[in-house]
Amino acid sequence: MTAGNKFALHPKLKEDSLPLGRLEISRVLLMNDARFPWCLLVPEIDGATEIHLLDPGDQLMLMRESVVLSKALVEAYRPDKLNVAALGNQVPQLHLHHIARFRSDAAWPHPVWGVGRAVAYEPASLSANMERLANKLGAVAAAAQLGFRLW
Amino acid sequence: MTAGNKFALHPKLKEDSLPLGRLEISRVLLMNDARFPWCLLVPEIDGATEIHLLDPGDQLMLMRESVVLSKALVEAYRPDKLNVAALGNQVPQLHLHHIARFRSDAAWPHPVWGVGRAVAYEPASLSANMERLANKLGAVAAAAQLGFRLW
Repeated sequence: MTAGNKFALHPKLKEDSLPLGRLEISRVLLMNDARFPWCLLVPEIDGATEIHLLDPGDQLMLMRESVVLSKALVEAYRPDKLNVAALGNQVPQLHLHHIARFRSDAAWPHPVWGVGRAVAYEPASLSANMERLANKLGAVAAAAQLGFRLW
Repeated sequence: MTAGNKFALHPKLKEDSLPLGRLEISRVLLMNDARFPWCLLVPEIDGATEIHLLDPGDQLMLMRESVVLSKALVEAYRPDKLNVAALGNQVPQLHLHHIARFRSDAAWPHPVWGVGRAVAYEPASLSANMERLANKLGAVAAAAQLGFRLW
């Protein structure tokens, strides 16, 4: 595993999100956009930009972490569909979007990127959503025998 | 592994793409859009809609296949960035987009979905691109000790 000591979260990701916790190699962030339950998985690996350039062990761990985060989002929100994506055209630091989508949401059936503007959570709603997600992440990670600690 | 005998490619995916070959559990398709080198990985598993609902063994194999396809696209086109995504809001059959992106392409820095209209390859260009990709896929899959056969 190549988790680096020099890792620092990209300023744009930091600005747009709140830290939820850490799985085995990745930080889990909640995007501050109340329109969509939307998390990021960011491997804490200095300089990582593409999945195919990670060590094979990290690639497989990232898949296990992605599945844990997907299941936690499904348990927390019961969406109609998940969208999982590594794009990175604007923020090169490797980050995997996990978005719980609903047929009734603001962008359906289109992808969420570039649609309208983010709507920040109200403080009480932010706390409630973070607690709900953290609880589900803890339970799903434990069932998958993956480590998870709160931020 | 749960690769099913009843698997049939979704009509919309069939309409938009050309079959390149098959890795261990997934079909590899080339989208017929000359604006972007754009492949799909479609696990041949009847009824599959979400990565997190696959068997754990299939999840890890899908990651390995995704890495092979990513490396083949990089070797064939030397893009500035790869975009890898499982969306499925419009076509429920599980399919993973792999798109070689360039700072000079028709959608940069935005995602490609919903941008303009597909431009079908000219026949000679289609053959050349398919051959180039198939050759790279064969070599990269062999190096990763994954099976690949041409369609």
